[in-house]
Amino acid sequence: MNTDALDRMFNASTIAVIGASSEAGKVGHSVVKNLVDGGFAGRIYPVNPARAGDELLGCPYYASLADIPGTVDTAVIVIPAAAVNDAIVACGGKGVATAVIITSGYAEMGNADLQAELVQTARRAGVRVLGPNIFGFYYPHNDLCATFCTPYTKRGSVAFTCQSGGVGMAVIGFTRSRGIGVSAIVGLGNKVDIAEHDLLAFFGHDANTRVIAMHMEDLKDGPAFVAAAREVSSRKPVIAFKTGRTPLGSRAAASHTGALAGVDRIYDAAFHKAGVLRARTLDELLDWARALAVLPPPRGPNVFVHTSAGGLGVALADAMFDQGLQVMEVPADLEEALRKHVPPFGSLRNPVDVTGSSTPAVQAETARLAIEDPRVHSVILGYWHTIITPPMVYAEAIGRVVEQARAKGIVKPIVASLSGDVEVEEAARYLEEQGIPSYPYAPERAVSALAALHRWSRIAGLLVEHDA
Amino acid sequence: MNTDALDRMFNASTIAVIGASSEAGKVGHSVVKNLVDGGFAGRIYPVNPARAGDELLGCPYYASLADIPGTVDTAVIVIPAAAVNDAIVACGGKGVATAVIITSGYAEMGNADLQAELVQTARRAGVRVLGPNIFGFYYPHNDLCATFCTPYTKRGSVAFTCQSGGVGMAVIGFTRSRGIGVSAIVGLGNKVDIAEHDLLAFFGHDANTRVIAMHMEDLKDGPAFVAAAREVSSRKPVIAFKTGRTPLGSRAAASHTGALAGVDRIYDAAFHKAGVLRARTLDELLDWARALAVLPPPRGPNVFVHTSAGGLGVALADAMFDQGLQVMEVPADLEEALRKHVPPFGSLRNPVDVTGSSTPAVQAETARLAIEDPRVHSVILGYWHTIITPPMVYAEAIGRVVEQARAKGIVKPIVASLSGDVEVEEAARYLEEQGIPSYPYAPERAVSALAALHRWSRIAGLLVEHDA
Repeated sequence: MNTDALDRMFNASTIAVIGASSEAGKVGHSVVKNLVDGGFAGRIYPVNPARAGDELLGCPYYASLADIPGTVDTAVIVIPAAAVNDAIVACGGKGVATAVIITSGYAEMGNADLQAELVQTARRAGVRVLGPNIFGFYYPHNDLCATFCTPYTKRGSVAFTCQSGGVGMAVIGFTRSRGIGVSAIVGLGNKVDIAEHDLLAFFGHDANTRVIAMHMEDLKDGPAFVAAAREVSSRKPVIAFKTGRTPLGSRAAASHTGALAGVDRIYDAAFHKAGVLRARTLDELLDWARALAVLPPPRGPNVFVHTSAGGLGVALADAMFDQGLQVMEVPADLEEALRKHVPPFGSLRNPVDVTGSSTPAVQAETARLAIEDPRVHSVILGYWHTIITPPMVYAEAIGRVVEQARAKGIVKPIVASLSGDVEVEEAARYLEEQGIPSYPYAPERAVSALAALHRWSRIAGLLVEHDA
Repeated sequence: MNTDALDRMFNASTIAVIGASSEAGKVGHSVVKNLVDGGFAGRIYPVNPARAGDELLGCPYYASLADIPGTVDTAVIVIPAAAVNDAIVACGGKGVATAVIITSGYAEMGNADLQAELVQTARRAGVRVLGPNIFGFYYPHNDLCATFCTPYTKRGSVAFTCQSGGVGMAVIGFTRSRGIGVSAIVGLGNKVDIAEHDLLAFFGHDANTRVIAMHMEDLKDGPAFVAAAREVSSRKPVIAFKTGRTPLGSRAAASHTGALAGVDRIYDAAFHKAGVLRARTLDELLDWARALAVLPPPRGPNVFVHTSAGGLGVALADAMFDQGLQVMEVPADLEEALRKHVPPFGSLRNPVDVTGSSTPAVQAETARLAIEDPRVHSVILGYWHTIITPPMVYAEAIGRVVEQARAKGIVKPIVASLSGDVEVEEAARYLEEQGIPSYPYAPERAVSALAALHRWSRIAGLLVEHDA
């Protein structure tokens, strides 16, 4: 698939804002302000015939696209719907690759004819369209905030696409709150042209993107999506949060974007065929995306649970069963090695319970035995807050073990569930910085994230079921 | 059921700590320190024959229980298991109602005989036993931290009981982090005597407790539990998080506490018969307990969804379908009233989408129409962060609407899902303080909490299916 137009959108050197405004609070003002405040290093051209000669935040206004010297890669359009078609024709004349149409007032308001006209105009003009009826897009690796929402500059490695602005804003808040960043957040809205399959093709080859996480209420072209996702999903995890999956949700989607949410079984089958992980909740979409962005794939199915609280081990084991994760039988020699450190009231049967009586040294040594054992492919850590090993002492001890293992070339997925007083939240943040997705108070979420990784690794053929 | 012993435990005036120690870091030191630091207003008697004549944190040591003047309500025991039976005999002699046995080394370590002896001794001595092998208990309404863990004094209205200390510590961290407090946190451990049904009987009549949330790996006496829970659940919600519900979890539970986790279908049937809400994850236990502690029961089944983001409305509708909540048809006159405020590209069909273009006044007025309509029994709010109505402006506007409704005697459950940048977390805290459980970035959790309330209200006969 040709991704030149998207390349000129995400890696734009020059952006025009058609309908730029000097009035604070107006969408046409916010877009220019966000581009400037976001630190975009390319050229920003505010376009507004009534303002020609003025400046907006240091950028001279132009009366029209045609007046701008040189090429324009992308045009962000915020003028009323009735005037958009003329702007698209102008974009065609100027050689603009992509028009990002924030303007609403199309099919979502019952104006299907106007939307059909837009499609025809853009096709004739040779301009690709993102939207309409969207918040715009973010691409932090180029300091690109082409949106009226809020600046967002934290670089990460998950590309989010959102049919709904409501979900897009949740992505911004969640990823900012957790300090994880994104490679992109893209609004899709009415999707008259650029759709999920186009973005899959682009992000599939985008060096800044490791995981693609997509919210959608429908797919306009199912076969194109399946083809694009199949191609990408063996290299990068693709996660879909498809709403409108129930009769009630489907009715709401029809009211919302006019989306024909369709028969859910068909979506399930399509996702399966395409190697796409399906999230059932927004929590899952966000959790899985965050975890899969940092975790290496496991080499095999064996999961070792290392816990200092037996009760946590039970909850983790339940969640593993629910999620189809394989609790490995602890090999006899590893059991012997562990026995030297684990008190008799602990358990050497997986989940291995090193007990709350464990010192930091015992925690570290037993975790090391598991992490460095080549027969262990993934590790789940279950921490229980004790006086002997407080949360940050634990987190730093585990951090050292992981660092030493990495120095020996040992890389495997590790997730952590932390139970304790509020200090475990700080410990979770520390572990996250060491590449260990960590969940305070929620054992099941750690397991769910690891299980999503296992499913993807199987899809990508990276997980070998049986060791040679 | 006679709850005198538990009454003398939770409302103790005098507490002895058998095995008190002056050595910081020792369990026998931490228990006394937590009682003192927690602000317990009754008398604290450290008992240790080697220390008689000394003081510990302002409390004089006693050589033995018998030496203590006057009555002792409760004894916290932290001496080695081999010496516990003698201490229990002494408790009997002194008329101690309950022994809280923190000491471990019983069935969980394979010492079933020692545990059987303990049971016999306590029975003969007429002393009730909590534990052994527990962290102790908290009862903040009496500033009572009878535990070695960490002081915890925030008063709330949920009583948590935890078979596992690992889960107990998660309760402490979660409730402290969310600022919600508890009425009690009780460790159950090996449960040789006091079990869930005893605590149900006590908390069922405890004026400080509105909700009872129980973690368990097994039930020693199923019929007693069902009888006690049935009696309580029509007055107060009872939530159970039973782990070891899968083959894997059940095996882990056997290693952990020797619990025979049993056939899960039987637990399901027992919970159903007893009117107990079953949480499948720790997240659910904590979320539901928090929500049910503040929400009034709905008068009927009709749920109104008020959202400013259509996409959020779709996700909320999916979750409502999953959870069996009833989206009410909007009556014609209410629809007419809403139409005056909702733009044409919104939706007047439930979920009602007032759109992101809504001013604070429109948000408030449309929310008011729903909240004050007697045909609406529950309200789910879905907020989308916009420039026109920022998070705190929204939260305060909704707060005023709710306050005005309450002034008119209108009380109904309201939950909120907030999508936006990180400021929605502050807005969520504000709404929580107004009695509206609020979930940033996680629409499904708001719905799950409201659905748990609906299920309990049906159990309690408070929800009438059809209006007269």
